[in-house]
Amino acid sequence: MRFNPFLDAIKTYESGKDIDLIAKEYGLKEVIKLASNENPYGTSKKAKEAIINNAHLAHLYPDDTMSELKQALAQKYDVLNENIIIGSGSDQIIEYIVHAKLDHSKAYLQCGVSFAMYEIYAKQLGVKIYKTQSKTHDLEQLYDLYQKHKSEIKVIFLCLPNNPLGECLDASAVFEFLEKIDEDCLVAIDGAYNEFASFKDSKKHINPKKLINKFSNCVYLGTFSKLYGLGGMRVGYGIASKEIINAFYKIRAPFNVTNLSLKAAVAALDDEEFIQKTLENNFTQMKLYEDFAKKYEINFIQSYTNFITYFFNEKNSTDLSEKMLKKGIIIRNLQSYGLNAVRISIGTAYENSKFFKEFSEIF
Amino acid sequence: MRFNPFLDAIKTYESGKDIDLIAKEYGLKEVIKLASNENPYGTSKKAKEAIINNAHLAHLYPDDTMSELKQALAQKYDVLNENIIIGSGSDQIIEYIVHAKLDHSKAYLQCGVSFAMYEIYAKQLGVKIYKTQSKTHDLEQLYDLYQKHKSEIKVIFLCLPNNPLGECLDASAVFEFLEKIDEDCLVAIDGAYNEFASFKDSKKHINPKKLINKFSNCVYLGTFSKLYGLGGMRVGYGIASKEIINAFYKIRAPFNVTNLSLKAAVAALDDEEFIQKTLENNFTQMKLYEDFAKKYEINFIQSYTNFITYFFNEKNSTDLSEKMLKKGIIIRNLQSYGLNAVRISIGTAYENSKFFKEFSEIF
Repeated sequence: MRFNPFLDAIKTYESGKDIDLIAKEYGLKEVIKLASNENPYGTSKKAKEAIINNAHLAHLYPDDTMSELKQALAQKYDVLNENIIIGSGSDQIIEYIVHAKLDHSKAYLQCGVSFAMYEIYAKQLGVKIYKTQSKTHDLEQLYDLYQKHKSEIKVIFLCLPNNPLGECLDASAVFEFLEKIDEDCLVAIDGAYNEFASFKDSKKHINPKKLINKFSNCVYLGTFSKLYGLGGMRVGYGIASKEIINAFYKIRAPFNVTNLSLKAAVAALDDEEFIQKTLENNFTQMKLYEDFAKKYEINFIQSYTNFITYFFNEKNSTDLSEKMLKKGIIIRNLQSYGLNAVRISIGTAYENSKFFKEFSEIF
Repeated sequence: MRFNPFLDAIKTYESGKDIDLIAKEYGLKEVIKLASNENPYGTSKKAKEAIINNAHLAHLYPDDTMSELKQALAQKYDVLNENIIIGSGSDQIIEYIVHAKLDHSKAYLQCGVSFAMYEIYAKQLGVKIYKTQSKTHDLEQLYDLYQKHKSEIKVIFLCLPNNPLGECLDASAVFEFLEKIDEDCLVAIDGAYNEFASFKDSKKHINPKKLINKFSNCVYLGTFSKLYGLGGMRVGYGIASKEIINAFYKIRAPFNVTNLSLKAAVAALDDEEFIQKTLENNFTQMKLYEDFAKKYEINFIQSYTNFITYFFNEKNSTDLSEKMLKKGIIIRNLQSYGLNAVRISIGTAYENSKFFKEFSEIF
């Protein structure tokens, strides 16, 4: 059977192995996953309760207006319901961006190394990709490339802070950059980890309301998968002008988010204690990873997220990741990003101490 | 901002109102929803338990290999894991079909009135649509149209039984029809309600294994939203040759189904008692809807699903639906399908008796 030719260029995404599978394969009693930047404290108590209390409604189609969650987000960000779209993870909003603005005759722009999904969705449509020489966000390089290929570039993705490198631009610098971008170029500010950056340094905080009031060509992306501890429930959102949201709505399939996910997200937003504990733990523990790196002379970039990325010179990241896997600790090897580096999610104090112990043995 | 021009042709999907919202709007104590063909017995006990027992894992990304659910489906249908793809509802598999095989230069074929999502996804790509004069599935008419426009038609959707009309072709007739279709034309057999049809009349049963063994160009679609009582969890699947599944996998986004949905689906497959109760209730109660229609001289087609469609002559279906809504009973008006008809989901004995009482008052 012949399929649409653009499929030929697509490599099937291969997911990592499940914890249970790894435990079985290597005969391990305990497996610690520090690979997907999930919340080390698990699911918030309030979200868990919301799931349990609504489990008996799993047979009913979700409320497709999603008004309850939209209302909660509108209140949090002081925007209107009409400025919000909910997706199956913020990944799905990335998909809407790509499908609404791009095709094989157009291009998007990103820094040298950033979140893989931008590229994955773009490749599905044969979209051209421009990346800066700089791996991290360098606004001068981004602007130079934009200027040079303005007629093609219809989307810019800025990941603030950046996954998988961890660095973060100041909001003021981002706003200055946005002034110079044409109104017909859609700029996505991916704030999947922005709560972490804002907590560490308020200069990194992107305010979605200010952003969309000032720039009608911008969309802010948020997620419940990281700070809010709902990676398994697939809930993210986009905040933008009504015009942009309406365009995305044309692409959205009905019932794209489960009813329990909607309930869990509303409850998670409300769990202040869990959120605070998560943020505080993250940076207290991050410090230990920085100290560890210094002790072992491992390079790292100051991270504004819930992970840290270690860069290696002589040692090989694939080799190190595999050795750690055999010891029951899953970390993310970044060779597929062209980096001899690993990304480690900041875990609980217990998980991190296990990491330090095991890593020092193999390093 | 300019968006891709194909968006101009798309009308935003407007979902029905939520039960709570309707109760508030009309000041009703009780609202009965017979509009979305959900399971009137709710969520199966086993599925509900699986959700509750796994709620504490909501922070972990889903196992993207989905091997547990694939294994359960492979066993049920006696096929291999590699013949299965899981989607966020079978809707998402429809999306994969459209995106893998069609574009604005191609066409798909369906009967006069069938499941709305085929058209919605096709319009997103500017795909041409051929429909038979006959509203229900008429294989001669389908074949005539296919023959005439063979070079364009790359997908055929057969909905067995058909939503929203309820009729169902015999499996043997379908297999004869398939013999005459070119190998490069992908035929989707949408079996969202096929368990109901098979229970009523074994001649309607489509066996996915036989289907894909005989026809390498066919995909069978199944769902957990109807019989299995998981409409809110968004789980469906496609069964086809490895070649077709691999093509779909290239379009699939990672983590497209929540981890609790996967757990619930595995448990629901195993809840034989719930399944039997649902099937038996459905056709016992369906008989009451047929008797009611005869008494009031309302036309209907023999239904092989968990809903029945009433056709009207003088009375207007919009008017009737609105009157029922004010009485707290939601049914599906089919004017958007060009029909002066309503589709009523078969409810519990209590819900149906309420329907009969209220409907007889307004009719």
